[in-house]
Amino acid sequence: VSEGLRRDLARLIGAESVVAESGHRPYRHDATIQRGLVGEPDAVVRPADARAVAKTLRWCYEHEVALVPRGGGTGLAGGAVPVGGGVVVSLERLRRVRMLDPGLWRMSVEAGVRTADVARLARENGLMFAPDPGGAEQSQIGGNVATNAGGPHAFKYGRTGAFVSGLEVALAPGELARLGRAGRRDASGYDLPGLLVGSEGTLGIVTAVDLHLVPAPPLARALVVWARDIEDAQRALLNILASGVQPAVLDFIDVRAFAAASTTFPGRARRGPLLLVEVDGGGADVERALRELAESLSGNGPPASEEVDARALWRWRDGMNGAVSAVRGGKVSEDICVPPERLAQTLAGVYEIGEELALPSCAWGHAGDGIVHATFMIDPSDPDDPERGRRAGECALALALRMGGSVTGEHGVGWVKRELLATQWDAATLAAQERVKLAFDPKGLLNPGKKRPPAPDGRRGPRASQEQRRQRAAGAPNQTPGETVSSKRRR
Amino acid sequence: VSEGLRRDLARLIGAESVVAESGHRPYRHDATIQRGLVGEPDAVVRPADARAVAKTLRWCYEHEVALVPRGGGTGLAGGAVPVGGGVVVSLERLRRVRMLDPGLWRMSVEAGVRTADVARLARENGLMFAPDPGGAEQSQIGGNVATNAGGPHAFKYGRTGAFVSGLEVALAPGELARLGRAGRRDASGYDLPGLLVGSEGTLGIVTAVDLHLVPAPPLARALVVWARDIEDAQRALLNILASGVQPAVLDFIDVRAFAAASTTFPGRARRGPLLLVEVDGGGADVERALRELAESLSGNGPPASEEVDARALWRWRDGMNGAVSAVRGGKVSEDICVPPERLAQTLAGVYEIGEELALPSCAWGHAGDGIVHATFMIDPSDPDDPERGRRAGECALALALRMGGSVTGEHGVGWVKRELLATQWDAATLAAQERVKLAFDPKGLLNPGKKRPPAPDGRRGPRASQEQRRQRAAGAPNQTPGETVSSKRRR
Repeated sequence: VSEGLRRDLARLIGAESVVAESGHRPYRHDATIQRGLVGEPDAVVRPADARAVAKTLRWCYEHEVALVPRGGGTGLAGGAVPVGGGVVVSLERLRRVRMLDPGLWRMSVEAGVRTADVARLARENGLMFAPDPGGAEQSQIGGNVATNAGGPHAFKYGRTGAFVSGLEVALAPGELARLGRAGRRDASGYDLPGLLVGSEGTLGIVTAVDLHLVPAPPLARALVVWARDIEDAQRALLNILASGVQPAVLDFIDVRAFAAASTTFPGRARRGPLLLVEVDGGGADVERALRELAESLSGNGPPASEEVDARALWRWRDGMNGAVSAVRGGKVSEDICVPPERLAQTLAGVYEIGEELALPSCAWGHAGDGIVHATFMIDPSDPDDPERGRRAGECALALALRMGGSVTGEHGVGWVKRELLATQWDAATLAAQERVKLAFDPKGLLNPGKKRPPAPDGRRGPRASQEQRRQRAAGAPNQTPGETVSSKRRR
Repeated sequence: VSEGLRRDLARLIGAESVVAESGHRPYRHDATIQRGLVGEPDAVVRPADARAVAKTLRWCYEHEVALVPRGGGTGLAGGAVPVGGGVVVSLERLRRVRMLDPGLWRMSVEAGVRTADVARLARENGLMFAPDPGGAEQSQIGGNVATNAGGPHAFKYGRTGAFVSGLEVALAPGELARLGRAGRRDASGYDLPGLLVGSEGTLGIVTAVDLHLVPAPPLARALVVWARDIEDAQRALLNILASGVQPAVLDFIDVRAFAAASTTFPGRARRGPLLLVEVDGGGADVERALRELAESLSGNGPPASEEVDARALWRWRDGMNGAVSAVRGGKVSEDICVPPERLAQTLAGVYEIGEELALPSCAWGHAGDGIVHATFMIDPSDPDDPERGRRAGECALALALRMGGSVTGEHGVGWVKRELLATQWDAATLAAQERVKLAFDPKGLLNPGKKRPPAPDGRRGPRASQEQRRQRAAGAPNQTPGETVSSKRRR
């Protein structure tokens, strides 16, 4: 049956746009493969252009086939994994830079352009595209838009959405819409580009992005602040926020996360949780800001601070994920978000979870925004570790809610963060979220099951029946989409 | 019948919350009264708190009565005018500052707090709330959120929405929802706060706003650049954008608009269109930026530039609206938005419209964002002027679309900008806009007729029949809502 589906799609958008079954492997998972999340696509297409994306969407909508849009596959929430089958729509061939007008701070790129290329093009033209999520070499701008990707510099400059002025997007039942304009200001409608940003492929498929860039700051300098313990780090954080300085970055790394990567640290490595602070602007201003930051830290027993080359620091920081994974071979890392004044309390909670489940824990993240990558190191070959890691992750999400925070600060909901949404949101928010989904995807075929709470009875909500109907019609076993995965998860 | 409605509402939320009919006058219009836009509310309520707002919404939704939310009444698009009757819900009594935490850059205020008070509170605590729309002394933060209000400093800092981290909002059919969080980062759902921002009261009624502020820049200095003509101003604008400097403000004023206010100008007044440029930051950086700006303008025959006290300049600039109105006693001013590189072409088009209709025309606005307040000065007592002004305004909107722009850059659609929306948007966008409206307001009772194109056959779309049904049930004459107004307008 999947073969028939691939044949139909080949007729629709060309045989060269349909991946042979033997080539499906890379499209079955994203970066959540570490957690064992793997799907089985019924077909994988690589449309040649935006029209072919819209055509695919139209066809799937007519035939009630689910679509799973896919960017660079670097997602940490399973958003691109075809957990319930369906057609994976990879945007990798939409790689044109349609327009670059540095004098007017504008760039228009197709969804498949790599994030690093967007940032490089901006930089080479005196401009800045500030979002710097991990995996920028692999990740694609379309995926960044779909997840509203952030990174350290989002603290000052905002996430991907802050740079989006318009979108080209394939909407159900199969039309290509231009939302917003190349110009930045348009008060004419509801902010549909803003609504699509961060919608994780559940409202439409982004095919091109109009970016509004900003002039690159002349200079950036970075300071590392060594704290005695997490309470001391918390105090330093609050002092920096109260200093009157607007840092470009305000990150933290705890003792154990730092230890995992200390050998390659581009400064003098000490012990202790550290804050990474970057200030940018003109030379004299950066100088003044660094001085003011130092003053803000000069209480009794101030933490030691030290300047480190900013570029080297961020290159090093990019390796944090890998370094922590390497300690025991694997990890479960939950991106949670809490009020910044509760950072120390949250870290204490993370460590407690780790102790209870006998897993080494650590954390790092974007302190200024309260984003904590709560991490539990596991040995994937251990018979118990993966399951304990999963439970630790669940506890970390619950901790975030107890702190008055969110189960996700920047990685998105995808498939792996759905369980607690219904707890996090009030009833009116939950209803409004569902209404938005229904307005854009009445048949529930756009990235099914992602970014929404599972239905309370274990079915997947209104869409589940559609999915099941499709699967039954296709002769598939009568299972809830993604059951192979979700049955491993506690309800 | 309206009396019965007022009695029911008094029972619901207290007699002191229902305005006597004799007190309706101020609630019949907003700043569009200059165009003669006046409505007739069936009732006016001033709920004491957010719960009373939600209660009112629930009651109205049950009884199919339209609601028209109202802030300070400074809107320039008629968004707060009860053109088809209904219950005006004034947020003026929701004036509490619920939370102010300068150390964490946070403030939470109720919808009725005045914009100027929000900015002042921020400033007094070393922080900045950058949006500075006209009328800040009267306008309320809830209305700013509802229209995503901008102003000169939005060029660098973004409009109101860029400062909103969460909202409390009454949603149909009558629930109070908390969208987003006091913290800034939450990737858990669709960006509902962002969707409500700029929705002009057509999706819900904002009752409180969580603001994320930024540290106030230490210093701001302003430069006035005198150009020889509009082409010269266009060149200067492009040179400034290409200079590598990020101005905080990049405004323009044309010859005739400047002439109207020249006597109070806080610098040496010359002739010619001018650009107003503000740079902020630390002292040395501002110095450097001003130098770089001057260099960017030093082509052959550079325009003259001169520094002016920034505060005095913005105070003066705030009076522009009144000064231009005073020339002939009235004006029609359309806030349009065009690509910044088409500023000169757009101004030429505005002047042409004025000449054709024999009305003095002028323009000023936010050049860096391509926002042009295209203005036609009228004598309200003249028998023809108001009608010619109306036609000129229509031509200015059509001009914006020919330039590849939008009929509104910052004032919103309200009631007066609806006509060309269906031309500006592609079919898919139009459909998506309608689906969002329907998702949040299935009965079409929230600010009916605003922010959406009139139905092609002259009815007001799905909602019209509801409205008519209600009016018939209430014994009102069988008319299309707002007919008294819209019949004066060309279809």
